[in-house]
Amino acid sequence: MKKYTLGFDFGTESERTVLVEINSGEIVAVASHDYSDGVVDKNLPGSTEQLPPEWALQNPQDWMDCLEKTVPQVIRESRVEPAGIIGIGIDFTACTILPTLEDGTPLCFLDKYKNRPNAWTKLWKHHAAQPYADRVNKLAEQRNEAFLPRYGGIISSEWSLPKAWQVLDEDADIYQVAHYFVEGADWVAWQLGGKLFRNSCGAGYKGMWHKSDGFPSQEFLATCSPDLTELFTKKFAGPMAAPGEKVGELNEKWAQKLGLTAGISIGGAIIDAHSAAIGGGVTGPGTLFMIMGTSTCHMLMAEEEVLVAGISGVVEDGIVPGFFGYEAGQAGVGDIFAWLVKNGVPPVYHDEAKKKRVSLHEILTEKAQNLQPGQSGLLALDWWNGCRTPLVDADLTGVMVGYSLQTTAEEIYRALIEATAFGTRKIVELFREGGVRIDHVCAGGGLTQNKLLMQIYADIIGVPIEVAASPQSSALGAAIIGAVAGKAYPSISVAASKMAPPPERIIEPIPAHHKIYSSLYKEYELLSVFFGENKDSVLKKVKALR
Amino acid sequence: MKKYTLGFDFGTESERTVLVEINSGEIVAVASHDYSDGVVDKNLPGSTEQLPPEWALQNPQDWMDCLEKTVPQVIRESRVEPAGIIGIGIDFTACTILPTLEDGTPLCFLDKYKNRPNAWTKLWKHHAAQPYADRVNKLAEQRNEAFLPRYGGIISSEWSLPKAWQVLDEDADIYQVAHYFVEGADWVAWQLGGKLFRNSCGAGYKGMWHKSDGFPSQEFLATCSPDLTELFTKKFAGPMAAPGEKVGELNEKWAQKLGLTAGISIGGAIIDAHSAAIGGGVTGPGTLFMIMGTSTCHMLMAEEEVLVAGISGVVEDGIVPGFFGYEAGQAGVGDIFAWLVKNGVPPVYHDEAKKKRVSLHEILTEKAQNLQPGQSGLLALDWWNGCRTPLVDADLTGVMVGYSLQTTAEEIYRALIEATAFGTRKIVELFREGGVRIDHVCAGGGLTQNKLLMQIYADIIGVPIEVAASPQSSALGAAIIGAVAGKAYPSISVAASKMAPPPERIIEPIPAHHKIYSSLYKEYELLSVFFGENKDSVLKKVKALR
Repeated sequence: MKKYTLGFDFGTESERTVLVEINSGEIVAVASHDYSDGVVDKNLPGSTEQLPPEWALQNPQDWMDCLEKTVPQVIRESRVEPAGIIGIGIDFTACTILPTLEDGTPLCFLDKYKNRPNAWTKLWKHHAAQPYADRVNKLAEQRNEAFLPRYGGIISSEWSLPKAWQVLDEDADIYQVAHYFVEGADWVAWQLGGKLFRNSCGAGYKGMWHKSDGFPSQEFLATCSPDLTELFTKKFAGPMAAPGEKVGELNEKWAQKLGLTAGISIGGAIIDAHSAAIGGGVTGPGTLFMIMGTSTCHMLMAEEEVLVAGISGVVEDGIVPGFFGYEAGQAGVGDIFAWLVKNGVPPVYHDEAKKKRVSLHEILTEKAQNLQPGQSGLLALDWWNGCRTPLVDADLTGVMVGYSLQTTAEEIYRALIEATAFGTRKIVELFREGGVRIDHVCAGGGLTQNKLLMQIYADIIGVPIEVAASPQSSALGAAIIGAVAGKAYPSISVAASKMAPPPERIIEPIPAHHKIYSSLYKEYELLSVFFGENKDSVLKKVKALR
Repeated sequence: MKKYTLGFDFGTESERTVLVEINSGEIVAVASHDYSDGVVDKNLPGSTEQLPPEWALQNPQDWMDCLEKTVPQVIRESRVEPAGIIGIGIDFTACTILPTLEDGTPLCFLDKYKNRPNAWTKLWKHHAAQPYADRVNKLAEQRNEAFLPRYGGIISSEWSLPKAWQVLDEDADIYQVAHYFVEGADWVAWQLGGKLFRNSCGAGYKGMWHKSDGFPSQEFLATCSPDLTELFTKKFAGPMAAPGEKVGELNEKWAQKLGLTAGISIGGAIIDAHSAAIGGGVTGPGTLFMIMGTSTCHMLMAEEEVLVAGISGVVEDGIVPGFFGYEAGQAGVGDIFAWLVKNGVPPVYHDEAKKKRVSLHEILTEKAQNLQPGQSGLLALDWWNGCRTPLVDADLTGVMVGYSLQTTAEEIYRALIEATAFGTRKIVELFREGGVRIDHVCAGGGLTQNKLLMQIYADIIGVPIEVAASPQSSALGAAIIGAVAGKAYPSISVAASKMAPPPERIIEPIPAHHKIYSSLYKEYELLSVFFGENKDSVLKKVKALR
């Protein structure tokens, strides 16, 4: 009898389940379902009171409701015998945390608290905790905290400490009653399998946890606020689990609800982007995996921990147990192209797109394809949404130089693509300078469908780029983790070598283009130094006048 | 009986005649007529042979044909008695030169030469002489020629020496047969009045003539080419005439053709831009006059000759006799806004313009008006068409910094307007640093109709700006010159004080805006130094890769 695993991929708006055959990695069925309450950013469910700006919440009920829809659907459609399913893996957005009672009951499920915004799950993109992040950063810098350089010198407002501090500051009752704060991923695993574990990926990248040093010290927390002193030791207590490590078995209640057999192994969860790397077959050192969408997230593994400027984090066991997982990021990629398409393309292009029944992106790409590297005379800094790696500076802004009276929209479009590729090359070079090997680049995400873009990336970075085959890399990664938890494979590497498909295509750099782009890259670096590595940068002074 | 003068304004595509009453300056009639052959840049009239790129010629026949249309028309429409007309003034594009026989017959009128491109009038914007300009510049720099700094260190391909050298090099026959090279302005005056004078404005700004030093030396010309040695002494021979100086009287032949009385005084001609200053009432030191259109030309007078970096020229008697006339320029102004409108504005703005039946410029202006200075966070260098004053560098390109994902088309539009105003402020400051007084700014040209733009200029420069009332400033300036030639007034200043209308409006700077813009201007200057005053500028290196 064939064996299968389930991958649960919890996104921002919906959950997706894949059912995967563990020898071939074939996805035999896939189902997804939208969250009923979606992203809660206007008013709490059942209330008309408006939430403040920058808030973004989720309803945990939605997560479990989705499973009740998607799991029976994949069983039904695949006609797989539930007894053949040997493991469950979970990937989730992060940091997406909720306060619960000791037994796991979300505070937002209780009538008493359901009208209190801070009782709800703070979604990863809840940005209202920025003032707390600012304070964390200031204090950590003053105290020279060892954790800070591991995160490029900046703790994000999206992470657990600022979010928990906001709860304490705005609604001390809720903070007191919250026995735990739990990542959504761990909460779902807890519901399904009966025990609370903390996934090392979420804890490491978003919770400032370190395998040797643990969480930030009580002393540091006390400096933030005396009431925070025991935040990590008590409210984030629980054993740590690396991705794929078995954290429990499916209980009777949920087996029944989902139409599965009780006792299926549940694997330690993982963040969705990191799961995509595994689903893309990247499970060890030497290959940079990029998820390219509105922004780009870069993941890389190595045997050692080194400090690389401006990376988003380095976490032991963060992606695949046994390796240090590095994460870097570009704050704006696809959304820069979307900005141009929305704000800077004249009607004649729109008309052509309508006539040919293709998107404006396709029209611009088609025209940009006829340009040679360097031909437009344009060069940009890809900081429309600030710069994450390496400068970790949200105050930076976009720059375009080389305009002439002949400059066209497709030239600008191409220059923006090139700029994001130069940004990626910078990250590749930083890792290499830091002693972290990169032999290959592998890419997933929506932008990989743009062939010109991928060729430009290969030409600029100067290495072949493998394009991940599956549009469901994250969910597949979760299924691979499920297979390891189910003991079908001894490790994630072995499981991925069987279950992750080979790349859909490999893009080789064109040497003549690489040469021109390397000359342009030198100028990109000069601009980057002039505008970015300078407290008195023109960009900052102009922005300050806004 | 009232007295009148005629102003003939010879442009690029058409000629315009105004008939002006000399006491009030009232334009009692205006008529214009297009040149039949227009700008000859495809093939010679009567030939199908294609001209090389960058060529731009005119047919002198068109100039006289136009006068035969427009002069009778203004007489007819105004019902003015021809006997009441006491003077004729001429303004013309420059350098627009033609080779002639000793008697003034254009070589292109002769069957023998009419198929030879170099026999025709080279229009001001004929740019095919660039290689000769390059050689002139190189040799003048090597020899440290005194004339070079008077023109900001650069002789333009549009000027007389490169154009004449091209004739010699490409068609030595024509060069030999050409007894004279004549500015169109002087040729028309010659036809009408029977004698060849050289207008000091054209000779000074475009012919490298200097009131004390004369033309560049024979020694320098011989270094260019032995055959050029006598170019200025022979082929550009003829007495010099300042604007308004009497150069002859209307002859019988042309009096008859135009329906005028013979004997009317003809005044020494002037370049069209400089004539506009006079028509705008600017006839002495202290007021900067700007003609704002696709590009901007700045004119200023002073009692002394000083060398100001990057100006287009300083010429004694160049605008008004008795003063040194300074000219500076911005290579791209209105055409930068036109570039954006053509290449960077999405359909929703076009739709709104269509619906409101206004131009896209008006829509963008309306929206840009709601922005505060500095609000967009954008800052640009206005070098889309290179930089004339102060950097005299056609290889420079446009720069825009401060883009975010929220940046809109109207913000970009406003930033471009601001950039051109910063460019003007730079010129104002250069003159002041050089010791040339500027108390007021007066503006003419099409862009003055944009009220937001004019307010931004006043706010950025920090002085009141007077907007010239007449849309026919150039033609009116010519009529004023005609009044001086006709002895109705003792000088151009006195004539203009009577005949030039008061400004249409005066725009006062808003102090709070000036303060913010002065902060932004500091950043403009930093960008300007980084990108412009540097042989290894990123802009140049990127452009070199094209």
